[in-house]
Amino acid sequence: MTRRVVLVTGAGGFVGRWSVPPLLARGYEVHAVLSTVSNRTLPAPLGVAEVHRADLLQPSAIDALLRAVAPTHLLHFAWIATPGVYWNSPDNQRWLSASQHLLRGFAECGGVRAVAAGTCAEYDWSHAVVCNERTTPLADAARTPVSPYAACKLALERTFAAAQLSTAWGRLFFQFGPHEHPRRLVASVIVDLLAGRAALCSHGRQVRSFLHVADVGAAFAALLDSAVRGPVNIGSAERTSIAALVERIARHIERPELVRLGARSAPPGEPAVLVPDVARLAGEVGWQPGFNLETAIADTVAWWRSALAGRPAPPP
Amino acid sequence: MTRRVVLVTGAGGFVGRWSVPPLLARGYEVHAVLSTVSNRTLPAPLGVAEVHRADLLQPSAIDALLRAVAPTHLLHFAWIATPGVYWNSPDNQRWLSASQHLLRGFAECGGVRAVAAGTCAEYDWSHAVVCNERTTPLADAARTPVSPYAACKLALERTFAAAQLSTAWGRLFFQFGPHEHPRRLVASVIVDLLAGRAALCSHGRQVRSFLHVADVGAAFAALLDSAVRGPVNIGSAERTSIAALVERIARHIERPELVRLGARSAPPGEPAVLVPDVARLAGEVGWQPGFNLETAIADTVAWWRSALAGRPAPPP
Repeated sequence: MTRRVVLVTGAGGFVGRWSVPPLLARGYEVHAVLSTVSNRTLPAPLGVAEVHRADLLQPSAIDALLRAVAPTHLLHFAWIATPGVYWNSPDNQRWLSASQHLLRGFAECGGVRAVAAGTCAEYDWSHAVVCNERTTPLADAARTPVSPYAACKLALERTFAAAQLSTAWGRLFFQFGPHEHPRRLVASVIVDLLAGRAALCSHGRQVRSFLHVADVGAAFAALLDSAVRGPVNIGSAERTSIAALVERIARHIERPELVRLGARSAPPGEPAVLVPDVARLAGEVGWQPGFNLETAIADTVAWWRSALAGRPAPPP
Repeated sequence: MTRRVVLVTGAGGFVGRWSVPPLLARGYEVHAVLSTVSNRTLPAPLGVAEVHRADLLQPSAIDALLRAVAPTHLLHFAWIATPGVYWNSPDNQRWLSASQHLLRGFAECGGVRAVAAGTCAEYDWSHAVVCNERTTPLADAARTPVSPYAACKLALERTFAAAQLSTAWGRLFFQFGPHEHPRRLVASVIVDLLAGRAALCSHGRQVRSFLHVADVGAAFAALLDSAVRGPVNIGSAERTSIAALVERIARHIERPELVRLGARSAPPGEPAVLVPDVARLAGEVGWQPGFNLETAIADTVAWWRSALAGRPAPPP
């Protein structure tokens, strides 16, 4: 059987870790790279061939890793992801450079296929309603200001597209699930409601599409395991307003009276509707989510109940 | 006065060398980088502060150059440009990597503004009639096949756009003039006609826009010297069919009877019309060409007459 050795960067992160079980199920030898510097690195997923701790912002660390593993496949999640910071951080530029170095080294050591995590922020949100990989314009500084996050992800996407090996690019939309950063929307609502505190939200009329984060990992494993090239939206065909999502979570926790829609202002520039066309993911990659919104909420609330059990409630 | 030291890569090349005199006129200290490997490197332009011979495909050569010069400005022309080869060469990928390394090092050593040479091949030619920087879709592998040349230039453009310094990106269309590679259209027609040989052309109905190459260099100097960011078409508002251009050249040389339109097949996939919208160059950069098509032809024919004088005619 052909050697299939995949290097998964960001494998200790919220999204990346969920790619490992489905990669193992597909027969890959999985080498998980965990950050030595992030304070959000989670324990290594079970079943990996080897755990590598590395600071990928150091080119020499990338070189050593590639020499040690000689991967045939690359699944690249590692990037700055700190809520409230990642959007405008100068670290986006550092991650772009590091990722370009990683891709180059991967190609030079004989890698055959690479997939990385992109973002719905790559789309031009003034055109974005249902984002399609072929027809929706991309964010472009010649048209409107582009965040450093989106600009660096777009630059890396172009570098992947230009590489002389098989590459694809999964564009993440919205996800929630176990281990989510407690400052992010769904996690913060669940934590507040479980603690009996009011959940302060914006108006909630924004229409979005959410995946359970385990499905995001599974979708990336399927994309890596396919021959599909170029950008592929990673998302669900199920759409919801933020208000409806929060109210479902509150009904599930049986605290609907604690939801405060309109208590916070919505961030400026947020599009009214930002959802993926998932025809490429479903039709070309041939992948479907395992969770729907209801089961994703149930699973995530159960995880938070368990994670918070016996602990003092986090400060408001 | 503020220190303004510009590193010009590809300064021995057909296009890059013409940026040097206008940069000197604008008060820059010019450091010209000449390739150690290209067999098309021309003598260094006069008046530069220093000539550096370097193989920019070696990262250590880039690092040494940046340390030695500590440039405040970067004008990056160096790239593979061999006619018939550059479009699909794997060297595009090497030039992309080298250029990304150069930009990163330039930023790290305190560079404040960088401009590089892009290409009209970045536009989606199925949409390209009059190419506008803001509204014409870019080539995208998710839509149609993209050449390695265009893909790597697009990836570099995105890397420039994401950089944390002031950058712009000049998209070249078509140019001719002294020192043009004799396999390229205008040079080959002039050389044939001056030698009394038939000039074999395609149907010639393609509509294009040509600049004298000295004007291309002047436009890049103006762009570098401006605060304009993002992509800017480098071209002329004067449009011509290839047939009309060739016939003007032939009238100038007084050998109209040697033009053979339709004797060659046009390359597949060539767009019927590919011309720049030059409103951004004229309005925002504030630059206008010094030559028109007639004076550009006269100057170029005069140069070829002089260059070929006393030499045996090149083989057909």
